[in-house]
Amino acid sequence: MINRETFARKRVLVTGGLGFIGSNLARCLVDCGAEVTLVDSLIPEYGGNLFNIDPIRTRVKVNFSDVRDEHSMKYLVRNQDYLFNLAGQTSHLDSMNDPYTDLEINTRAQLSILESCRRNNPDIKIVFASTRQIYGRPQYLPVDEDHPLSPVDVNGINKMAGEWYHLVYNNVYRVRATVLRLTNTYGPRMRIKDARQTFLGIWIRRVIEGEPFLVYGDGLQRRDFNYVDDVTDALLAAAASEKANGEIYNLGADDPLSLKDTAQLLVDTLGKGSYEIVPFPEERKIIDIGDYYGSHDKISGHLGWKPRIGLKEGLHKTLEYYQDYSRHYVEP
Amino acid sequence: MINRETFARKRVLVTGGLGFIGSNLARCLVDCGAEVTLVDSLIPEYGGNLFNIDPIRTRVKVNFSDVRDEHSMKYLVRNQDYLFNLAGQTSHLDSMNDPYTDLEINTRAQLSILESCRRNNPDIKIVFASTRQIYGRPQYLPVDEDHPLSPVDVNGINKMAGEWYHLVYNNVYRVRATVLRLTNTYGPRMRIKDARQTFLGIWIRRVIEGEPFLVYGDGLQRRDFNYVDDVTDALLAAAASEKANGEIYNLGADDPLSLKDTAQLLVDTLGKGSYEIVPFPEERKIIDIGDYYGSHDKISGHLGWKPRIGLKEGLHKTLEYYQDYSRHYVEP
Repeated sequence: MINRETFARKRVLVTGGLGFIGSNLARCLVDCGAEVTLVDSLIPEYGGNLFNIDPIRTRVKVNFSDVRDEHSMKYLVRNQDYLFNLAGQTSHLDSMNDPYTDLEINTRAQLSILESCRRNNPDIKIVFASTRQIYGRPQYLPVDEDHPLSPVDVNGINKMAGEWYHLVYNNVYRVRATVLRLTNTYGPRMRIKDARQTFLGIWIRRVIEGEPFLVYGDGLQRRDFNYVDDVTDALLAAAASEKANGEIYNLGADDPLSLKDTAQLLVDTLGKGSYEIVPFPEERKIIDIGDYYGSHDKISGHLGWKPRIGLKEGLHKTLEYYQDYSRHYVEP
Repeated sequence: MINRETFARKRVLVTGGLGFIGSNLARCLVDCGAEVTLVDSLIPEYGGNLFNIDPIRTRVKVNFSDVRDEHSMKYLVRNQDYLFNLAGQTSHLDSMNDPYTDLEINTRAQLSILESCRRNNPDIKIVFASTRQIYGRPQYLPVDEDHPLSPVDVNGINKMAGEWYHLVYNNVYRVRATVLRLTNTYGPRMRIKDARQTFLGIWIRRVIEGEPFLVYGDGLQRRDFNYVDDVTDALLAAAASEKANGEIYNLGADDPLSLKDTAQLLVDTLGKGSYEIVPFPEERKIIDIGDYYGSHDKISGHLGWKPRIGLKEGLHKTLEYYQDYSRHYVEP
């Protein structure tokens, strides 16, 4: 679907480049012949992990810095053709316990990155990774891009603001930007140490370690899941399309599943393991969004994107990866 | 409509208390017998003006500080029964030229005020002054609270985030909060030095000074206007009602008018003056929202609020005030 030639010899900056999605994207980009710079600060609680780029270590530049560092970002965005802006604080619980850090990363840093682009490289094309979290508790399903925004936690509010900066800078200053609202993304190189990035991470860790994992609530909440290769396809398609400038696109899957059925599928795919359905911890219950699955009709219509890898196949590939490499993800 | 007894002997904090709406509200509150503390930092470009409280100077406490000052705010919110949270950066143009200051005041300071309330005074009731600007260019008219949020400038994004913090802290931490989305508010004590608070301000200054004032665009954009006494009524009604907790209410007027007709009404009311219809300056055109008027059906239904003072009567009262006192508002 992606014309690989689009990115050949192009200069590409990826914030959060040592993280889950960033490192998978970097593999695609180097395969396309792009000159890739990865920015990451390796905050221990976040998704960055040097092992993620082990297979491409010699083919990318790694720049250790924080998106909150206005000065380094100002320099780094110069002369880039594309910016995949993926760095973010992703934990909903952490955003409630430390709302200022979430604000600095998910909101203020986004503003300063956009100001840098506007002043130092207005011809750059940006793709921003936003989140379905900003819709809050769905008023209807599947959730499309016209669904009202009603964030239920500080992370959702700050991501919403960060997203809208991109749209305003696109509309007012013509710094081209596209927003993707991601749903649950999973696959090789995800954080599995805990649930900070996605609950599937800790499920996978525990099932591989032979421990039962926990499903909160009644297990009937439905969710949709995208395998990471489908997400990197969407990021590349958005970057390559002029039609996508100023647009917001949901990702989503065609096979939403209850948490209980997802848990069972994980156990079945591995061929062993178990889970327990337990009541929500209070601090999670109050920010839970219930059933969610999104419509990806808009991006399918505009950019021809569709998820290609179903949950069963994706979980299989993911489990294969962590059976080989989990030590690189769980050790301190 | 308001039971004045509600606020008798109650401790009330007003941020932006020396500003336009804050000072008018303070007059009502002292008349109700409240113990009122006004917080203001008198930033020269904003709405604060000591003359605004001239008639009630001995009946209120004034605390000069900035809502960005976490420590003073932490102390000030203690032991208050009500917080009218009105301080904000209001200029759309300034938000584009200096987005960080807008972010600090309209977003980060709101978060720190709410954190202070949560930790130091969770029983406080907060009313937050938000803005119709966060709807962006209307998709339908009149705009109700279900209209999608689609801010067109940095100020709109930051106010949107500040507003949603209030809702999340209400929903998650039960710090009671109500959001009012104000439209164009006008009346005595507004800033008339320039257009930073509302375009009506500079119109009034120029017409009183015998200079023609400028109407941008074709003059056909419709807007709605609330006289400040109606707005203070709405603030008090929202504070007094438990039903209003966690709710968002639009204000609005029943007599939206084109800018050209508003200009003519201003000239007719004063009995002299003139205006010129001129093309939009580029930096204003790109963030203009076109026609806007809001529906106030929700607050009318929940709280019985209705605007009582029409534009003609309101402009008359406003012009009377500035004919007497304009020197206190235009001198350096």
